[in-house]
Amino acid sequence: MRRRSTRLLAFAAVVLAGAAVSAAEDVRAAIEANNKAFSAAVARGDAAAVAALYTSTAQALPPGGEIARGRDAIQKAFQGMIDAGATDLTLSTLEVEAHGDTAHEVGTWALKAKDGTALDKGKFIVIWKKETGQWRLHRDIWNSSTPPPAR
Amino acid sequence: MRRRSTRLLAFAAVVLAGAAVSAAEDVRAAIEANNKAFSAAVARGDAAAVAALYTSTAQALPPGGEIARGRDAIQKAFQGMIDAGATDLTLSTLEVEAHGDTAHEVGTWALKAKDGTALDKGKFIVIWKKETGQWRLHRDIWNSSTPPPAR
Repeated sequence: MRRRSTRLLAFAAVVLAGAAVSAAEDVRAAIEANNKAFSAAVARGDAAAVAALYTSTAQALPPGGEIARGRDAIQKAFQGMIDAGATDLTLSTLEVEAHGDTAHEVGTWALKAKDGTALDKGKFIVIWKKETGQWRLHRDIWNSSTPPPAR
Repeated sequence: MRRRSTRLLAFAAVVLAGAAVSAAEDVRAAIEANNKAFSAAVARGDAAAVAALYTSTAQALPPGGEIARGRDAIQKAFQGMIDAGATDLTLSTLEVEAHGDTAHEVGTWALKAKDGTALDKGKFIVIWKKETGQWRLHRDIWNSSTPPPAR
């Protein structure tokens, strides 16, 4: 009887561990799909679609500017980047860790011109929140890895 | 009897909610204390003490450079900043949100020269992890809010 309980317990542990791994993979897959939608919105110059990927109380923390709070401010910030020529943005996920309806992502980004010339590249951290069943960017900060010009 | 259970349940809910608020305040207080230790280590030019505030598997994502992985690389990155004249660093916490042994912090930073002149300021996001009973920086990214010079 004891052996049977041990086996059942071991089985339950394997099932639970499997479910946890599968849930973690689901979050990463959802985030990577959102990143593709993000890049696609930038590519067609649609700052409103970019902003719609953020939560209603999101904050974007861009280099060279102040914190953009809320979707309107975030849309404006991305409109500025699009107007400055941002079209080909690649987002690569290095790490996703989820805790319930909150997750953090560490990744890298690369920006190219229309002709394929590399413009800039860097890193980012995003805090994602599941809002009305959808993973959305909640806090978003990035920087460039390009060393500053020598002075 | 039912009324009594309802009252007990309401009491338990208030106690639990109070404990959650208190735990959240504890995390924020611990993080703010660590930030003070961080600034103090920078002020005395002690890059090893800065690196010791990070987890053993930490990553720092500085602007103008690649990801520094692990305490040795992080120490080296901060030694570079200290050698470049960083001494008076103020870290201000805007938001802390904890999920078990993981928390994220959103904040701002300001760097001054020894004579009090403002050098630069910006924003950061840190993912904190409780490691061996201590909250430590696990993922750390920051950028400058200063607009780039016109080209």
